[in-house]
Amino acid sequence: MRDALVAAAFRLFLERGYEQTTVDDIVALAGVGRRSFFRYFPSKEDVVFPDHERCLADMTAFLAASDEGHEPVLRVCDAARLVLGMYAENPSFSVQRYRLTKQVPGLRAYELSVVWRYERALAEYLRGRFTGRPDGSLRADVVAAAVVAAHNNALRSWLRSDGKGDASTTVDHALGYVQSAFGAPPAAPAPEHPEDPERPERPEDVVVVVSRRGAPLWRVVREIETTLGRE
Amino acid sequence: MRDALVAAAFRLFLERGYEQTTVDDIVALAGVGRRSFFRYFPSKEDVVFPDHERCLADMTAFLAASDEGHEPVLRVCDAARLVLGMYAENPSFSVQRYRLTKQVPGLRAYELSVVWRYERALAEYLRGRFTGRPDGSLRADVVAAAVVAAHNNALRSWLRSDGKGDASTTVDHALGYVQSAFGAPPAAPAPEHPEDPERPERPEDVVVVVSRRGAPLWRVVREIETTLGRE
Repeated sequence: MRDALVAAAFRLFLERGYEQTTVDDIVALAGVGRRSFFRYFPSKEDVVFPDHERCLADMTAFLAASDEGHEPVLRVCDAARLVLGMYAENPSFSVQRYRLTKQVPGLRAYELSVVWRYERALAEYLRGRFTGRPDGSLRADVVAAAVVAAHNNALRSWLRSDGKGDASTTVDHALGYVQSAFGAPPAAPAPEHPEDPERPERPEDVVVVVSRRGAPLWRVVREIETTLGRE
Repeated sequence: MRDALVAAAFRLFLERGYEQTTVDDIVALAGVGRRSFFRYFPSKEDVVFPDHERCLADMTAFLAASDEGHEPVLRVCDAARLVLGMYAENPSFSVQRYRLTKQVPGLRAYELSVVWRYERALAEYLRGRFTGRPDGSLRADVVAAAVVAAHNNALRSWLRSDGKGDASTTVDHALGYVQSAFGAPPAAPAPEHPEDPERPERPEDVVVVVSRRGAPLWRVVREIETTLGRE
């Protein structure tokens, strides 16, 4: 019945517009009573995002099941992938909803509040892991915001392409950027010459960076980037 | 009259609660008509955040006045400082509003939408500056989100301390973290011994990092951090 209500609601939203559709219209099309609607959805907004509550619960459970062995930035990236999974489960529904949300300010506001809840869940977990580190709460908030922004940038680009292509490749790439910015190891790429006995260490395999001890880290990093990119 | 309306509104919000106060109550206390209220504020929410529209306009103008010489990450950090300035202008009002916003879900939602508009303004500017760079739009979104999160983390900690202490020091520190993560040069600290003829270069002023060329950048960075922190 829940799925029937969502299907009826979306059919009407697309035909008449979101604002012009009432809960009465939805239940009439689905052939159920108003009480049934409100048993599943607290409001008309909620029927547009029927799976976020479940996904938030999944994310919270996933993070709660972490242990000390999980690298924290990698872990919140994996948690964000749960949201992607929810969108990718049903591409055509996700694309329809994306278009609808862009048109209706009230839905945009609802979505912002959902995104904020995901971000809080990630930040809470990171605060726990960063306890005792300098700037732990700052780092937690910044990393959580960066992960959400990267995820949403990739998700939007997939939705704008009408859900074509592989969403997870785009999201992996975006999350990899955040991981590199915050010092978490990205998934190790396969070496170009794995254990190749024909390719012994050569002197050009070594980069030497010489730096004054007082130099700010960003300058050292920039030098390394420049050096590595110069080949 | 605008200030009188804000003052009357806050007096009533604190005495009776936000939900229990009507626009009629506010205009009666301020001694003006309803039309005057709506000339300044589209809704009751807006009277709680009377300066965000001006601040958003200031931020947009500030970013529009940038040129190629401005380092982009530094520039959006400076733009974020305009928001801090608005809060720091009137600490007791800002602290009152912070407490009120925490209690009223509707105001929290309003605030999220304002924060989102600031973040969009920063991201738009960065997209323009990052045009043609690999992952320009991704970087723009992630950096904008990180700047907003760092700013808000520092702002909240200042508000929680009842607006005591120097807000800008806290915010500078938070934004410095974002700058270091995204490779933008932080404001150069004064050298410990500026042009000191008594302190010639010594061998211990040099760090040498040796790395295999194929090593991922994050490992090189981690090594440098470890080395520099080991003293």
